[in-house]
Amino acid sequence: MQLLHLDSSVLGADSVSRQLSMEIVARLRTLYPGIRVMSHDLAANPVAHLSGAHMAVRNGVVSEDPALNADLVKGDSYLEELLACDILVLGVPMYNFSIPTSLKAWIDRIAVAGKTFRYTEAGPEGLLQGKRAFIASARGSVYPPDSTFAANDHQESYLTALLRFLGIEDIEIVRAEGIAFGPEARAAAVTRALESIAAI
Amino acid sequence: MQLLHLDSSVLGADSVSRQLSMEIVARLRTLYPGIRVMSHDLAANPVAHLSGAHMAVRNGVVSEDPALNADLVKGDSYLEELLACDILVLGVPMYNFSIPTSLKAWIDRIAVAGKTFRYTEAGPEGLLQGKRAFIASARGSVYPPDSTFAANDHQESYLTALLRFLGIEDIEIVRAEGIAFGPEARAAAVTRALESIAAI
Repeated sequence: MQLLHLDSSVLGADSVSRQLSMEIVARLRTLYPGIRVMSHDLAANPVAHLSGAHMAVRNGVVSEDPALNADLVKGDSYLEELLACDILVLGVPMYNFSIPTSLKAWIDRIAVAGKTFRYTEAGPEGLLQGKRAFIASARGSVYPPDSTFAANDHQESYLTALLRFLGIEDIEIVRAEGIAFGPEARAAAVTRALESIAAI
Repeated sequence: MQLLHLDSSVLGADSVSRQLSMEIVARLRTLYPGIRVMSHDLAANPVAHLSGAHMAVRNGVVSEDPALNADLVKGDSYLEELLACDILVLGVPMYNFSIPTSLKAWIDRIAVAGKTFRYTEAGPEGLLQGKRAFIASARGSVYPPDSTFAANDHQESYLTALLRFLGIEDIEIVRAEGIAFGPEARAAAVTRALESIAAI
């Protein structure tokens, strides 16, 4: 059994999403002894923004640029790791209502027609069936589902839509929100999140 | 009068969003003779993903890294250009249901508390009042508002939410969608979009 663990917060040891994703991985190690874990810090070591040069290589142009070639190899390895894993654990802060660019850059490498989804007569079909995903979500404010703020959430809602499109239906969100509302609010939110991780 | 024009497609001259944003700018030049236009190709020349090193400098650490410092200067200039403009024109393709990372990286530099929004007793308040925005949106598929696909749109819906949060209420979307459904569908979508630009 294989687990892919990705963090994307730029806050290092101060990051709530990182704390939660680590706890989720620790919990899953307890539940599945012997599970192999592959971890990446996308914030510390991201792939580049997609560019015209990337598209040119995809379309058959041979690149002589070592940095571009290394970046393409890294992107290909993202895809292989995702295909190989059984469980995906994502540490994801909300930045300006969306996800960190390093995580979106990861998505732009793993959303590949013929690999993680395909087009059929009946519409697109996700190819990552049978995998399970955990999202360790951290956000400064709160986004109650029935409030006007809910429409601003393009972090959890986006990731959920994207993972479902790729065929991952079993998605569990562990959330610490309102963490910018002061130390007490942050501590309470983290405590609640850790409790829900213990219940996995 | 000042116009800020940003493109984010990686497709260069093949880009539909780029074609549309150029036409919008041309139309606005006709309507407002003498308007000054500042254009950037974010895909060709993006800022980096936010990183721990960026946050450290924001928190007062002095950086000796020339590349980081140049990137921070570029991010600061994004903010100044946005504050100075009267009209914002964004060329925005949908990539994997969201926006290009280069444009999100731009957003991560211009969404600055105290500059483009502020926190008040009554909640956050956008500070970009009085500006007008045009979004030249291109997407391969279609996302009818009343369909199940609508929830997958985190491109137009995200940008609209973000711009409104920053105080920009006057947002016009020029859309060419279904452009991956073949050359005829693409041509028809572009023709409709160009007609709506002529009507600005």
